[in-house]
Amino acid sequence: MSRGATPVDPDDGLTTKERRNRPVLMVNTGDGKGKTSAACGVALRAWAQGWPIGVYQFVKSAAWKPGERDALLALGELRGDVTWERMGTGWSWSKATDPSDARAAAVEGWEAIKAGLAEERHRFWLLDEFTYPVARGWLDLADVVDTLASRPGTQHVVITGRGCPQEIIGIADLVTEMSKIKHPFDKGQRGQAGIEW
Amino acid sequence: MSRGATPVDPDDGLTTKERRNRPVLMVNTGDGKGKTSAACGVALRAWAQGWPIGVYQFVKSAAWKPGERDALLALGELRGDVTWERMGTGWSWSKATDPSDARAAAVEGWEAIKAGLAEERHRFWLLDEFTYPVARGWLDLADVVDTLASRPGTQHVVITGRGCPQEIIGIADLVTEMSKIKHPFDKGQRGQAGIEW
Repeated sequence: MSRGATPVDPDDGLTTKERRNRPVLMVNTGDGKGKTSAACGVALRAWAQGWPIGVYQFVKSAAWKPGERDALLALGELRGDVTWERMGTGWSWSKATDPSDARAAAVEGWEAIKAGLAEERHRFWLLDEFTYPVARGWLDLADVVDTLASRPGTQHVVITGRGCPQEIIGIADLVTEMSKIKHPFDKGQRGQAGIEW
Repeated sequence: MSRGATPVDPDDGLTTKERRNRPVLMVNTGDGKGKTSAACGVALRAWAQGWPIGVYQFVKSAAWKPGERDALLALGELRGDVTWERMGTGWSWSKATDPSDARAAAVEGWEAIKAGLAEERHRFWLLDEFTYPVARGWLDLADVVDTLASRPGTQHVVITGRGCPQEIIGIADLVTEMSKIKHPFDKGQRGQAGIEW
């Protein structure tokens, strides 16, 4: 929490209220645990504000059914507007793309996000594991950077994934690196329900 | 996610099922953002498993009303069992302790957690900002370590806060350090609703 005096006085011509409503681009990167779970924790704050939330998971596996998806969709049904899309099962809007073609699916997902950002479809966007299709060169990095940097309105965007390209870190407002100090995996223990998914 | 082959074969005499149900002690520490939000993201997974959840916030300010609290309590009302206690307003069970006496309140909170661990009150515990009363010497570190290390059953515990004592890291299963790469605070921007709370 960062609610005390700030180290420098901002010189941006904005009122405090305007400054508190600036769109934030957040990146959770690094090799440690907690990138997606922290993004989902922030999504809870967005939900509590009543903001429309869109989660786009750039993962291949259709078998991946994380508990945070159940929880956020349940919250969306209760109150608000939560969209959760997964590349692995095929995007819900897509009829054309074979979901097993990860590259084509990633491109199609990004095109939909671009269109959604242009029309301010959500107030809070979570692009989960989005660094991978970018780092692999499946998406055009300059296009990603331009689109994110010029997005209209007050749309907050959180990007997760290892190895976030420096060009995205360059335009981000808030970047956190999650580093592993210790993980049960190193001792031969796999992930557990309720902890890792 | 850690579901592939592990780097070593465990030599613990447990079956895979037993190993997947081992109690986990998790620590989110470091100076960066995401310690509490990642813990809340993991709480969503615990909720999706139907586990009783207990959150104990060791923060002083009664004014701190994070969105993740609203969200998790809403989920608990929908289905399951979510307890959320805050030191700042006085623990709900406490009539005796003045909540402005942070040290006494922290001691009282820890005593209740000890009793709760002994009777396996929750399956998932979040001790938020718990490193502070420990690091300040308000709680007996040896007692904290012994109690956590010998907790009965399959109780998962997540501890958050900067500067986690090495003795707790020593008994933890999963430790992540959140490091700040970039934060708007450095440019004079304070926290924002929906992002920081």
